[in-house]
Parts: sequence; structure tokens; C-alpha cells
Amino acid sequence: MGEPLETTWKKIAARVDAALERYLPSEETPPVELHQAMRYSVFAGGKRVRPVLCVLAGEMVGGRRSEVTPAACALEMVHTYSLIHDDLPAMDDDDFRRGKLTSHKVFGEAMAILAGDGLLTLAFETITRHTKKAGVAARLCEELSRAAGWEGMVGGQVFDILGEQKKPEARLVEEIHRRKTAALIRASTRMGAIAGGARNAELRELSRFGQTLGLLFQITDDLLDELGEEGKMGKRLRKDARRGKQTYPRVHGLDASVKLAGELAAKAESILEKYGERAKVLRSIPRFILERAS
Amino acid sequence: MGEPLETTWKKIAARVDAALERYLPSEETPPVELHQAMRYSVFAGGKRVRPVLCVLAGEMVGGRRSEVTPAACALEMVHTYSLIHDDLPAMDDDDFRRGKLTSHKVFGEAMAILAGDGLLTLAFETITRHTKKAGVAARLCEELSRAAGWEGMVGGQVFDILGEQKKPEARLVEEIHRRKTAALIRASTRMGAIAGGARNAELRELSRFGQTLGLLFQITDDLLDELGEEGKMGKRLRKDARRGKQTYPRVHGLDASVKLAGELAAKAESILEKYGERAKVLRSIPRFILERAS
Repeated sequence: MGEPLETTWKKIAARVDAALERYLPSEETPPVELHQAMRYSVFAGGKRVRPVLCVLAGEMVGGRRSEVTPAACALEMVHTYSLIHDDLPAMDDDDFRRGKLTSHKVFGEAMAILAGDGLLTLAFETITRHTKKAGVAARLCEELSRAAGWEGMVGGQVFDILGEQKKPEARLVEEIHRRKTAALIRASTRMGAIAGGARNAELRELSRFGQTLGLLFQITDDLLDELGEEGKMGKRLRKDARRGKQTYPRVHGLDASVKLAGELAAKAESILEKYGERAKVLRSIPRFILERAS
Repeated sequence: MGEPLETTWKKIAARVDAALERYLPSEETPPVELHQAMRYSVFAGGKRVRPVLCVLAGEMVGGRRSEVTPAACALEMVHTYSLIHDDLPAMDDDDFRRGKLTSHKVFGEAMAILAGDGLLTLAFETITRHTKKAGVAARLCEELSRAAGWEGMVGGQVFDILGEQKKPEARLVEEIHRRKTAALIRASTRMGAIAGGARNAELRELSRFGQTLGLLFQITDDLLDELGEEGKMGKRLRKDARRGKQTYPRVHGLDASVKLAGELAAKAESILEKYGERAKVLRSIPRFILERAS
């Protein structure tokens, strides 16, 4: 039968946390203020969605753990940097995340900007220093930079901010979701596949799986902002509507959003169907994410 | 006799500019606001010190131009991102740079932060997409990430900001100069050497040359802030003293700083002496930098 997904997830997350502990400069390393700020946000209780997907994709294609771990940690560093910068006063101006004060509230704006810059840079350092095969390291850096940059996350954040002034529009919502969230989730399964030595077909299908899962993830996030309980989520909710954010529920309504989420989960599952037992854990993730939002 | 350094410099800078033009998303590519901001700062009249050093180091070791150009452009992207973030209100709060309004004054703080993030990420994308040999690309990404990150530039900026509260101190000034400026200048000659296929001895000596030049560069920058003319420099001067920045002249005085600059220039020249004609252009750069400040 195998263990429940939660158990597998926790084990992988613990391994990733141990590796992050090694890769991040210690709190005693000067400048201590920078490293305290970087560590504060990396160890602020994130669920490690991207590293877990990366590790599971690597395992699915038969990769070695030691080859996948640096990529998994790099993804979490990039994700964390993006949250720190998104929370800044000039951006979304958030005081809380995961029930804790945001970086700039604790360390000040200058240090929050630099902690983000430091984490983004450390992601590439981690890949290149700890991935044994240079050819793999170069491909991983390319994947990460394209997913995180203008075509991906940074571009998505720009559309997101500019979209606050505009009325909700289907095409714009999709553009934002694809770039801001799906690009890095897709990179997670792709990087796991590449680090694990995937064959072309495997890479292609893990790529589609990641893309679909990424859209699902963002829609459930939008739904949680509308329907969730603040105490449980550790941050203020109903922010999207207040700010006029472009979200799927605001364009299509709650019912259509819930329906689409279900369709995306089914689609993601089916993409990896042919891999049978090997893909069993990965295939259980779409439902897991879907259930967050219901 | 060969052409004057200024002529060689202008030719290399023009080639680098043409490559940057190709590597940066066009102003018509959505989100246009992001790409306008990225291009505004990249094409704001920078002298291209780091790319020129990278190209000259690559040429010295017999490298091919096409292999060195992506690294040279990546260095300028990282340098530009660091200026955009340094100028932010939360950091140095500068309104002008090179006689033009700073990024956040033109595009707003959010876009300036994102333009910086986008450029830092694009640097790694540029190396991995345009460097033919994967092994070289991986090494270049490692060099760049280490020089730009917590050990280098980001860490240096933290020391720089925190140092504003403290009284000028020799050890701290050196730490800031080494990380904030010298690390990326050293990476410039190192990356040129690596991309150009340098032998170990060449890499070692170009590394020492870059390190020495980087310290020289920062001291002359400190001196220019004390002695320069605002109209000529295109930015406000005498800022270091006003802000209580840790600078060489503030610790050791003007005379000792001028003297040290001369010694560093002589040292840098001597490091590459044994390479004779091949290193002629590179060896003329320390004097060139020194003369800026006199």
C-alpha cells in the first residue's frame, strides 16, 4: 500500500531542510545580519512544495538523491526570495506571512531587499557548487533562470502589480498564473527530471505535469484567499479583492474556479498515468492540493 | 605601437553593447514596463569596465570572442542590478546616476526592484544559453554567483550600510572594498580567463590582477567622491562623508589614499609583466584608472 503522502512529504521536507541548513551561511558568519535575514525567511515554515516536487520527479526517473538535492534547495531559495521581495512596502506591503512578521518588518527594508538578492544568487551558487556533472549544472541553471526571470516569475509579478489597476480579465489572469506561479512549479519537476537523468519523454511529461499542477496550485491559492480562515492561514486574507488583484475567482466566479481546479487535478493525474507505480506519489499530489481548497 | 587604450576600449564596449542589445528582451516584449526599466539602466552610459576587463582577459589567453561575450554581458547585468538596488530609497536613496534619474525615480520603486531582480536572473540565463561548452557555462555561473552573493557583493553592501553608523575603521573599509567592488572586478578577469580557456597559471595571475585592480578601482572611486567635480561626474558628490560611509580617504587621509592607489597600480602592472605583448592592453588599465582620480 505504501505510506500516506503526508509521511513521504514530511520525510523529503526534512531532508531538504537539512540540506538548506548546510547550504545557507550560518548565523555566525559575517555579515550576521544578512544571514539571519536569509535564514529567517527560509526557515519560516514553508511547505517545501517545490523541493518536494523536484525530489519526487527525480526519484520517478531513477535519479540519485545527492544529484537532486541541490536543485531542490535552489528552488526553495528562489521561491523564498520572491516572497521577501513581493512582501516589500513598494510591492504588496504585507506585514505577515505564515503567521510570522515579514522580513522587512523584522530586519528593515534594506536588509530584506538584500536577503532576497542574496538568496536568488545563492540558488545558482548551490547548483553549481553541489551538482557533480557540469553539463547537468548548466542545464539546471538555465531552467531556473528562465523560470525565475522576465519570461517567468519576475515578468509575472510585473503583470500582477500592473493588473491591480485593471478590471479582471481572463487572458491577463492566465498570463499572471502561468508566469508567476506555474513557471517555477514546472521548473521544479523539470529540474528534478534533469538532475535525475530523465529521458526525453519523461522530461516532456514531467514538464506538462508541473505546468498543470502549477495552474492548479495558483487557482487553489486564489480560492483560499476568498474562502480560507485567517487563523489557519497565518496571513491576512481577502486581500486579492481589496487590492483589485487579477484572480481566477474574480474573473470566472467561485463555482467555475472550483470546477476548473478539479479538471486540472484530473488532467495532471492522467499525464503520468502510464508510469504506474513509479509515479504513484507524484500523481497523488494534485488531489492533495485540490483538497487544501475545499 | 598599437592603438590608444581609449580606442580599444570603445571598440570592445561597442561590441558588448551590441550583444546586450540582443540578450535583453526588447522594449516591445511584454511586460514592456519591465523591459523598459531593465534597458534604461543597462544603457544609461556605463563605462563597461567589467565587460572590457573580461574580454581583454579572454583575449590575453587566446579565447574566442563568441565564448567570452556572454560572460562579459552577464557581468554588466549584475553590475547594473546592483546599482539599481543600491540607489533605492531604502538603501542609498540616490536620485541621480551618470547624470540621469535613477530607476526608481523614473519607474517607481516596485519596478526598480523587479528590474534589478530581472537583470540578476538574466545574467545566469545569458551565460547558460549562449556559452557553448556546458562545463564552461557551469564554471562561469559559479564564479558569478560567488562574486555577486553573500561572500561578495551582497555581503559587501550589507557591511557598507551597517558601516554608516560606525566610525571609520581600516579593517572594515577593506572588507567592504574587497566584497563590494573587488569581488566582481576579480570575477571579470577570472570569467574572461575561464571562458577563454586559460591555463591554471594564467587564471591565477589574472585573478590576482583583477583583485588588485578592484581595490584600486574602489579607492579611486572614494577619491573622486572627495575631489571630483559634480558636473563632470553626473551625480552628487561628497556623499560618502555626509553619510558617514566607510572609505579609504576617511580612514587613512587623502595623501595616504593617493599613495596606496599608486602602489596598487604598480602592483597590478607587475603581476602580468611576464606575459609581455599579450598582456599589454590589460596592463595599461591600472594607470588609466589611476589617472581618473588625479
